[in-house]
Amino acid sequence: MRVLGVDPGLTRCGLGVVDGLSGRRVTLVAVGVARSNPDLDADQRLLLIATAIDHWIEEHAPDAVAVERVFAQHNVSTVMGTAQVAGIAMLAAARHRIPVALHTPSEVKAAVTGNGRAEKLQVQSMVARLLSLDELPKPADAADALALAICHLWRPAGALSAPQRSPGSLTSAQRAWASAEQAARRASRG
Amino acid sequence: MRVLGVDPGLTRCGLGVVDGLSGRRVTLVAVGVARSNPDLDADQRLLLIATAIDHWIEEHAPDAVAVERVFAQHNVSTVMGTAQVAGIAMLAAARHRIPVALHTPSEVKAAVTGNGRAEKLQVQSMVARLLSLDELPKPADAADALALAICHLWRPAGALSAPQRSPGSLTSAQRAWASAEQAARRASRG
Repeated sequence: MRVLGVDPGLTRCGLGVVDGLSGRRVTLVAVGVARSNPDLDADQRLLLIATAIDHWIEEHAPDAVAVERVFAQHNVSTVMGTAQVAGIAMLAAARHRIPVALHTPSEVKAAVTGNGRAEKLQVQSMVARLLSLDELPKPADAADALALAICHLWRPAGALSAPQRSPGSLTSAQRAWASAEQAARRASRG
Repeated sequence: MRVLGVDPGLTRCGLGVVDGLSGRRVTLVAVGVARSNPDLDADQRLLLIATAIDHWIEEHAPDAVAVERVFAQHNVSTVMGTAQVAGIAMLAAARHRIPVALHTPSEVKAAVTGNGRAEKLQVQSMVARLLSLDELPKPADAADALALAICHLWRPAGALSAPQRSPGSLTSAQRAWASAEQAARRASRG
């Protein structure tokens, strides 16, 4: 399964494509950033980002698109642009008939590091380790997009609705996820 | 000049097309609402609204698209969807190479009623009068879209950057706007 992760932003929109299966090894396909100049009008900026997203979808043919869920409580000065880019990313996926999933930042952190409140640098380090990259993906938006894609591949269905669930009641997908997570953490210590 | 006004919303997106010139009589071309069912996933809702906006642009060939400027301070539970629809409306216009303008609610109220803090019903009444409609456009989102289009036609360039400007320093476009506004207010009293 191939997932395109989109970390929405009007100045920098992170894009990352990852191949993998639930609980299995993940591999990097492509990573980058779509940019738009803040001096341009908003509609032209959205057009630049939308064109880039369309290009990535057409070039990499993902099976799913994972977009960061944007909350109104985020940075007020940029949240409207971020929400608009999240909207055009969802629209681009829908127009290509590709399923869309939204993941919150803490879901992504939990999936990649095992801790929903992990620091940004820890998330980036884990993304580099999980994808066997020699260095941290830069800029941070690119790493975040890869983390979103990995989260989508690894997050077991239903995990969200039962975050407090005890280990004994895990489904097989959830056990696979937990095991992959432990393996990744072991690797990070090794 | 023909303007498509878009009052963005995910459940109801107001759409209104108005013909007119700065300070001159305005006429209704079309008005309606694009809707999406809240039970659908966000990407499918955005696709429905985007498809409707594309259809309106292609059918009515506006010279400009006026979109309400959305602020993060608005209703938090709906502001993200509203921002996303504003984004796809701007994107739709950009893809059709049509200029986009954003107008704030108070700019729209000031353009249509002469009072930036006018009540919603007053704005709707003025829209009906200005367009010689027998009844208030419904739902409110449709009337708001028409008001946006009228605002775009009537708002003089530079009016925003100099709201405190004295009457003596008005440009001819601004005088025309003030005069149209006065005429509209006289009509509302008559």
